[in-house]
Parts: sequence; C-alpha cells; structure tokens
Amino acid sequence: MIPAPYLLYLGHSTDFAGIKTSRGLAAFRPDDCVGEFRHDDCPLTLGLPRLTIAEGAARGARTLVLGIANSGGTLGSDLVEDAAAALEAGMNVAAGLHQRLRDVPRLAELAKAKGLQLFDVRDAPANMVVGNGNPRAGHRLLTVGTDCSVGKMYTTLALTEGLRARGIVADFRATGQTGILIAGSGVPIDAVVADFISGGIEMITPARSDDGWDLIEGQGSLFHPSFAGVSTGLLHGAQPEAIVMCHDPLREHMRGIPGRKLPGLKECLDANLQVARLTSPNVRAVGICLNTSQMDPAEARDLCARTADELGLPTTDPIAFGTDAILDELLCTAPSARSTTASR
Amino acid sequence: MIPAPYLLYLGHSTDFAGIKTSRGLAAFRPDDCVGEFRHDDCPLTLGLPRLTIAEGAARGARTLVLGIANSGGTLGSDLVEDAAAALEAGMNVAAGLHQRLRDVPRLAELAKAKGLQLFDVRDAPANMVVGNGNPRAGHRLLTVGTDCSVGKMYTTLALTEGLRARGIVADFRATGQTGILIAGSGVPIDAVVADFISGGIEMITPARSDDGWDLIEGQGSLFHPSFAGVSTGLLHGAQPEAIVMCHDPLREHMRGIPGRKLPGLKECLDANLQVARLTSPNVRAVGICLNTSQMDPAEARDLCARTADELGLPTTDPIAFGTDAILDELLCTAPSARSTTASR
Repeated sequence: MIPAPYLLYLGHSTDFAGIKTSRGLAAFRPDDCVGEFRHDDCPLTLGLPRLTIAEGAARGARTLVLGIANSGGTLGSDLVEDAAAALEAGMNVAAGLHQRLRDVPRLAELAKAKGLQLFDVRDAPANMVVGNGNPRAGHRLLTVGTDCSVGKMYTTLALTEGLRARGIVADFRATGQTGILIAGSGVPIDAVVADFISGGIEMITPARSDDGWDLIEGQGSLFHPSFAGVSTGLLHGAQPEAIVMCHDPLREHMRGIPGRKLPGLKECLDANLQVARLTSPNVRAVGICLNTSQMDPAEARDLCARTADELGLPTTDPIAFGTDAILDELLCTAPSARSTTASR
Repeated sequence: MIPAPYLLYLGHSTDFAGIKTSRGLAAFRPDDCVGEFRHDDCPLTLGLPRLTIAEGAARGARTLVLGIANSGGTLGSDLVEDAAAALEAGMNVAAGLHQRLRDVPRLAELAKAKGLQLFDVRDAPANMVVGNGNPRAGHRLLTVGTDCSVGKMYTTLALTEGLRARGIVADFRATGQTGILIAGSGVPIDAVVADFISGGIEMITPARSDDGWDLIEGQGSLFHPSFAGVSTGLLHGAQPEAIVMCHDPLREHMRGIPGRKLPGLKECLDANLQVARLTSPNVRAVGICLNTSQMDPAEARDLCARTADELGLPTTDPIAFGTDAILDELLCTAPSARSTTASR
C-alpha cells in the first residue's frame, strides 16, 4: 500500500490528458490529497492548494505522486530533480511511468539512504499464476467498453461509491495505473506477461463470502485489435455476475486507429456476454454508461433515454446523472443477489 | 538465428513429454541434427547417433539445444555442467526454460570468454509495438484449437511442408519455444507483455507480396480460461485468410483443469471465425486436424470421415494421413488465392 496522504504532481504539464492520474486521485481520493505541486509554467489546477515540496511535507504528505503522462513515459531531468527533492523532504515517491523510479540510480540511492520507498505501479506482481476459471464465491461486476478510454475507471469508481452509499460493502479492484494509485493496490493488467492475464484478475478478486461486491476496472475492448487479448483475459478472470458497458458517443474511430469504426452497442454487448459465459454462465448486462461530458445536457439525457430504449438496459452518464438506475437493476436482477435484495 | 547443426540434449529425461523440444527438432529439422546427447540413465532415444559433447563438436555441431522441459523450468546443476562442457567444446547453447541461461554467471562468463552465444528462446523481443489490425497484403493461415497441446505446431509444420511439396512458397511462423527452435526465429507469444500480443504476431508476419504463405503456429484456445487472451490476440494479429482447427479426440477435460469440458467442434470453429473477423472479415475455415496417434487406424479414419461430414470440412490427422485434402480446400477456396489456383 502506498502511504497517504499525497502531494499531487502536475509539474510542467500543459494539457489535462497529461495529468489524468493526478486528476483521478483528486477526484476519487480528495480526503487523501493535501495539495498540488506545479511549476510556474503549468497553467492547470486541480483546485487543491498549490504547495511547494517543503510545504507539502509540512502538511503531512507522505507520498509525492508523479501522476502525469509524458511522451515515451520517461523520467526527464526535471522529474528526477523534483522526485529527489521530495525524498530529501522525507516523502515516498510513486509513479506509473514506463521508466521505473528504481532504475534511476540517484533516486534509488536517496530512497535507501532515507529509508523511504519508491512505488512503480506499472510493475506486475511477482509469483503470478495462470488462471483456472473454476467457480468462486462472491459478487463481481466488470466494466467493459466499445473502445479504450471511454470511462471504464470512472464508471467502476462511481458504481463502487453508489453501492457504498446504499450501505453495501463494495471494493474497487484496479487494473490500470491510475486506478491502482486511487485504490492503493491492484494489478497493471496490460503489463503482465500474456499467460497471466486471467490469473492476475483472479488474484485480485479472490472468493468472498461477505455478500459484498468486487467492482473490477475493465481495460481495452474486445473490438480493439491492439488490446482485445487483455479484454478477453479480463472477462475470464473476473468471472463477472454482471457487466456494465461504457461508451463514448462522440468517438469517431477506435482509439489510435483512424478509419476503424467502433462496434455497435448491441454487437459489443453480445460479444462481451458470450466471452464472459466461459467462466460465468449466468452473467447479465445491467447497464450502459455514456461519457457525455462534451455534450449539451439535454442532448445527453435524450441520448441516454434512446439508448435505454434500444438496448432495454438502464443507461446513464455516471458522473453527470448518477448510477441509481444501474444499481437498481444490479441489485434486483443479478440472480444470486435476488434472495438478499428483498431485505435491503 | 541459432547456428545449426544441433546436438540435441536428452540429459537424464525419462519420459517423452519431457523431451518434446528435442523431439520436435529431430522430427522437423532432421538434416540439421548431428546427434543426441544423453546420460546412461536416460532410456529414451530420438533414433539419432548417441554422441558425447566432444563427439558432437567433432561432427560439426554448432549449438547444443537443451530441448527438455523439467519441473519448474530451472537449470539444475547437471544441466549447467553439461552446458558448460558444450561451451568449452566450442558450441553455442540454446534453451527455452523459464530460468535463463544468461542468468547463470558461470555460463554467461564462459560464453563471453569463448566468444559464443547463449540463446534463451523464451525471451520476448525488445522494442515491441502494439498491433493495429490494419489490412496487410499476403496469404496467412493460423492453426487454432479446442484446447492447448492438441497438435497445432505439428499441424502448422505439416501444412508448411505440404505447400512446399506443391511448389508453393511457404514459411512456418513460430510462436512457442519448440517452434522457435525448429524455425530458428519467432516470438514466444505467451511470454510477451499483454499489450503486445497482437503486435508481436503482426511483427513476425509482415505484409508479403510474393504469393507465398505464412503458416502461423497457434497457441492455447478461446475456450481455455487460462490462455484465451493469448489466443484472441493471436487471431487478431495473424489476420488470417484461413484457419485450421486442431483437436484431440481423446482429451477428457481442458488441459490442467479437471472437470472443464472441451467445447464442441462447431461451437469452437464459430467462435474462432467470429473473433478472427475483426481484422480479417473474409476469413474461412479450411480444415480440421485430429491427433489420432493413440487410436486404432481404422477408427481414426472413420472418425475423420464422420467429422468431415458433420462440419463440412476436410478432416485429417496430418501426421498419419497427410494434409492434401486441407491444402486442396485452401488453394481452391481461399478467395484471394482463387485467381492463381488455376495456373498451379
């Protein structure tokens, strides 16, 4: 576990896409974020107090989170400089970049000398095993998508919060670097060796018998030719009782592949259910989540209503309109939940 | 490329499953194998001359191939001793074990001192990129299976030889350690990072315009809950014009998972075609290959005939009965091959 509270790093970033990990932490772990660190040329803010490294340490920050993405995922000299300053001030450092913190001798030596930790959240865990698909106890929901980056993590987190608000035990299970920093644990499923995709998911969602839910962050899409293998292993390892499908209605082509159309919603839903049935024969779709952040609210509501009609499933933007309709569907229709729903 | 000819290592092995890599080389690269090396307690033979390390070197062997599997995939002291002797005698050493040759200091130092190479064929290549699924020129066939270890590699090699025997340019594209040693190159697709499954296959089967065929060794099964992610990425990366499905009629449950039934042949074929269509909309199934090595020949022929009737596809045991029926189907019905078939 990565020690909280955090100081969130924005550095010299100039666009919101580049700070998505820091942004995710500010959105979903606000109580654990003491402030943001940015240089004078960074025009962005997460709405948190702007602090220097020393001020962050003085306010109790235990970890500087390098929650940014840069071209190539490398640790430039400015990042190393700022990470070293955090270590000098007594903070741990966490990052999800391709280049590992521990591979920078200066940081490795400094952390050792100070008795602090470097967290490379893209590291796959050691001692992984292959999945087996054997039935296991517990309620599990997986988010799937028509494409990459259509809101699966936000949806999963929103559903987790929604269940908790109803007094139901619910745990977010992270599979990507931002999610892992938000949850404090997880498996970076795109970074494990191919044989261990489903096994990695089985590992982070073991059998549970407390009537609580594991809400598992999906990755990729069965219809993305780069990443469908990951999505397939995720479906099999998750053994989900329920799936929620996420979609970006304004996406013009599959991410990174100009000219390749997105699948139809019905086609995508059917394919996900079919693949999921290998390890979860009674899997059910319980809702559709649309990312309507760039749409007019009235249009967005209208699109949700039309989509719900077409697919016969509750459809919402989980951030704009909440998750209640999906949670109602989940708790009433998930077969193994039905017996306990009446008492809730 | 791993320098041939080879001296094949059997060591202290006592069962045929344990020497499958050496066996594959003896079967498919006989002209490149000068002999076999085994200790006195090894009751097995590949029918090659039994040679000491020194005799192997004297007969021109350039590489000792540790073509064995042992529990845990580790390099025991006996293996290290024999590998060191080969290096001392001037041979390179190749292995596909989990533990890497280069991680044994004695072997690494000896190889360096002698100017020889250590080949760890389970290493994924550096600088991998994600797949894109964009259409590319060339004829490609992929073998798929109802399960792991049902004869996909043998089938792929037999089809390659069959095409060559008809005067057609054909290249075997290896995706597993035995296949890579047989081919001399390839990508160990179960060992690449999950994001690069389809990209790894695109890399080893680039566009070709010589009217020749790439025959791609399949892995796993869409119906194996441990490895379906790998099989999915392989289908997308291969972008196959044709698939051949392999099956072991005597297999009682999915490999390694007691109690899990194999899929039906029709169900498995349909699922593979559906997944393949994402990057190869006109993909066709051109045959079924049954491993009948443990069956009575008359029963085997009868089963092939019944399976052919049921599925409407040529069905054979490629080792026992050859591949002609499948090659006829491939060369007559593959849409982009049709125009050139008449002249063959």
